[in-house]
Amino acid sequence: MPDQPLYRQVQDQLIGDILRGRTPVGSRLPSLRRLAEDLGVSRITVEAAYEALEAQGLIEARARSGTFVTRHGGHVPEPPESSQGRALPWEARLARSANPAREGMLDQVFRASGAGEAISFAWGAGDPRLFPVDAFRRIIGRILRHAGGDALGPGYTQGDPSLRASFASYLRKLDFPASQDSIMVTSGSQQAIDLVVGALVRPGDRVAVEDPTWPGALGALEAAGADIVGVPLDEHGMRLDVLQEALERGGVRLIYTVPTFHNPTGTVMPASRRRELVALAQRHGVPILEDDALREVRFGSPLPPPLAALDPSGNVLAVGGFSKSVLPAARLGYLLAPPKLLQWAVARKRSMDLFCSPLIQRAMSVYMDSGEAVRYWKRISRIYAQRQRAMDEALAHHFPRTARWRRAPGGPVMWVRLPEGVSARVLFAEAARAGVTFAPGEAFFVQPADQPYLRLNFAALGEQQIARGIAKLGALARAATKKETVK
Amino acid sequence: MPDQPLYRQVQDQLIGDILRGRTPVGSRLPSLRRLAEDLGVSRITVEAAYEALEAQGLIEARARSGTFVTRHGGHVPEPPESSQGRALPWEARLARSANPAREGMLDQVFRASGAGEAISFAWGAGDPRLFPVDAFRRIIGRILRHAGGDALGPGYTQGDPSLRASFASYLRKLDFPASQDSIMVTSGSQQAIDLVVGALVRPGDRVAVEDPTWPGALGALEAAGADIVGVPLDEHGMRLDVLQEALERGGVRLIYTVPTFHNPTGTVMPASRRRELVALAQRHGVPILEDDALREVRFGSPLPPPLAALDPSGNVLAVGGFSKSVLPAARLGYLLAPPKLLQWAVARKRSMDLFCSPLIQRAMSVYMDSGEAVRYWKRISRIYAQRQRAMDEALAHHFPRTARWRRAPGGPVMWVRLPEGVSARVLFAEAARAGVTFAPGEAFFVQPADQPYLRLNFAALGEQQIARGIAKLGALARAATKKETVK
Repeated sequence: MPDQPLYRQVQDQLIGDILRGRTPVGSRLPSLRRLAEDLGVSRITVEAAYEALEAQGLIEARARSGTFVTRHGGHVPEPPESSQGRALPWEARLARSANPAREGMLDQVFRASGAGEAISFAWGAGDPRLFPVDAFRRIIGRILRHAGGDALGPGYTQGDPSLRASFASYLRKLDFPASQDSIMVTSGSQQAIDLVVGALVRPGDRVAVEDPTWPGALGALEAAGADIVGVPLDEHGMRLDVLQEALERGGVRLIYTVPTFHNPTGTVMPASRRRELVALAQRHGVPILEDDALREVRFGSPLPPPLAALDPSGNVLAVGGFSKSVLPAARLGYLLAPPKLLQWAVARKRSMDLFCSPLIQRAMSVYMDSGEAVRYWKRISRIYAQRQRAMDEALAHHFPRTARWRRAPGGPVMWVRLPEGVSARVLFAEAARAGVTFAPGEAFFVQPADQPYLRLNFAALGEQQIARGIAKLGALARAATKKETVK
Repeated sequence: MPDQPLYRQVQDQLIGDILRGRTPVGSRLPSLRRLAEDLGVSRITVEAAYEALEAQGLIEARARSGTFVTRHGGHVPEPPESSQGRALPWEARLARSANPAREGMLDQVFRASGAGEAISFAWGAGDPRLFPVDAFRRIIGRILRHAGGDALGPGYTQGDPSLRASFASYLRKLDFPASQDSIMVTSGSQQAIDLVVGALVRPGDRVAVEDPTWPGALGALEAAGADIVGVPLDEHGMRLDVLQEALERGGVRLIYTVPTFHNPTGTVMPASRRRELVALAQRHGVPILEDDALREVRFGSPLPPPLAALDPSGNVLAVGGFSKSVLPAARLGYLLAPPKLLQWAVARKRSMDLFCSPLIQRAMSVYMDSGEAVRYWKRISRIYAQRQRAMDEALAHHFPRTARWRRAPGGPVMWVRLPEGVSARVLFAEAARAGVTFAPGEAFFVQPADQPYLRLNFAALGEQQIARGIAKLGALARAATKKETVK
């Protein structure tokens, strides 16, 4: 594979050795310097390869003793030693799952972000210091005092009637055609996505998605065995010319889209393209899954109507949630769908996890109905807009001149493109050592491969942290860009 | 079908009419008296047929206006009228799902139990009035004061480290070979079951289960397209002679069992049979899924070791939870599994619902580590034992002489067998009108069909309510038995 970057070649060779047993589990890998000399490549190249293998959970660096072959992600141990009985060949029996490269990368990001004093731009949500903790403590306390055991008992699989009413009223204000009966409560928008995928996608079915897109949707589609068709975006969202080609080739069973504050790019699809998209899907008899998980952090002009409002036939399924915009720990989202599909999803949820916690559902219902949610969204939108400006300025000051980004009209993240050839993987590894983390762009692509993209969260950090973190990251990015340019 | 009870014949005829469009959606069915005269059957027969159709969501009785064809479960509305666009043929596109007859029955039970002043023996858990509400209010308040936003942010997909440590320590005391790394936190034991089924069961795979068994497991298996092999129980649990035959016929990919306080029968499998079961599964290379969801309500002697402790090869997967024994609203369970399977399940959970609420996980961890959980289990076990005695006495006093039941050594339910030919469906309908509900036995069988079994919860009600409810139910059961005997 001489077209691949050097470090990928090194990485592939090491993987080969590990898989063929030449470098068995537990054995120590050569030092960076040693392997670089042996292979006639730079130390940085070997380091990038090691970092990538570590991201995949195949090797592990241990302080002061070297790098060792583990073969598993670090959080899953080897089976206990056993003298009797033989373990089953589990690996051969397991169903398909999400792309292991993406899973390994997400694990790596999650672990790096959790590490002590790191400045993390990796997160996809808002600032924990601003979470409405007091409001929820007050509301939960009140519910437990008055409703007592009732709030802690089992709940309706379709969702607590109080919360369905709150969701429906919220959604109707946004022009979603929702009623208490046409929605169900799910464990975050992720479960709503997984339910729709489980209902409609069989192995081999083609599903069109924006590329890049939300990795949770990719994971659900991969687990269902979908043949995922990535459709690129322009500044108005999913490119309909490319989508149309895919639809004309046939076999597409579902279109998944994030038309409002697209994750990771922040793009908003304008009303005209929304109408075209709905009409196109309708002509081809393909349902649309509209993901509206990020709507409430917004800076500026009003939003175009949701796809679900533009489709008189009821073939747009809508999912969303309040994990990202209120409380990640709430794990509450919704699915708005036609009756048959909703009935299927309620029955399936019963065999998935029975119901969502009635306590948290009732607390969220009170929080939304009291108007506190709206006031909270206004407040954080104002604060996050300032942080977005701070990040924009820091990027302009510290990042390579050739880097590109846009200030999106909402959402908590910035999508940054480095010059072609700069490895976000290498930058990730270097930055992690310097105490800064981010989400490498590859995690968001249908085919995870090293990409010159970073997703940077600006919402969870104060303006000074943003400035400090971007200064460090920018220095590393400039150095990497210079190296590329010199080559 | 002249072998079927009369009401089933009436029911089948009405279903036929509805499906052929002779009785379209929205139309009114004839009154009980009118149809009884037309068909030359008793009013009770027609009533039973109507009740069964209602349980399936095909018709709906509206107060003072009659009974109407709905075709849907009552909670799912018709699609909104639309002048433009055409709705997709959703029904044809949906994946398989749980058995609709069982789903309809469960819906019906849930709705009847929620109805106002009904005395409900239908529930599968303990008494909401005894839930540790104050403890959780105190613990949650403390966490929110001290951890603040951190407790409300996102969590690890494998589970909060604090709760994994608490679970592991709890499980080790019960002789489960658990460590913080060999378990994951799930959204109740139901999600753990669904994850294992998703990992190991492909459409057409045979899975052996006790028959009757926990309907949630049947639902997950049906959604996965399993060919479910029901194995009857004797007083020591699953019959291994029947299981062995099934294993010898081949194609069995998984054995699902509830060896401790089996749901619905309360049976405990003794140690000797547990050893045989593990050895039998091992010989055939089939993994066992051990469901231990009800262990902590127990009356008397110590329990035999879990299957997982008897299997040195690590081929027993264990699931359990604290929904039934602490708080249904907590939605927290665990999966104990070999590394490969656990890794698969963590990746799959990430695409299912990302993670469980860190707030509730930490609260449960504190509750378990403080020793409060153990004290609570002792206290409710003492109270529920008294209620079990009260129910035993009430049954002996009010139920037909020919009815049969056993006092199980633990769990919140009593499994009652009425004489052959007595319809639990008819009894359910009659009892619901008299303000008493229970779980009809058919919901627990692999092939849901009318059965002379009832599952009666004694844990959630006070002793006087038990006496009053069983007196009403007993009178109806005696009348039905008399009718059967006279025939």
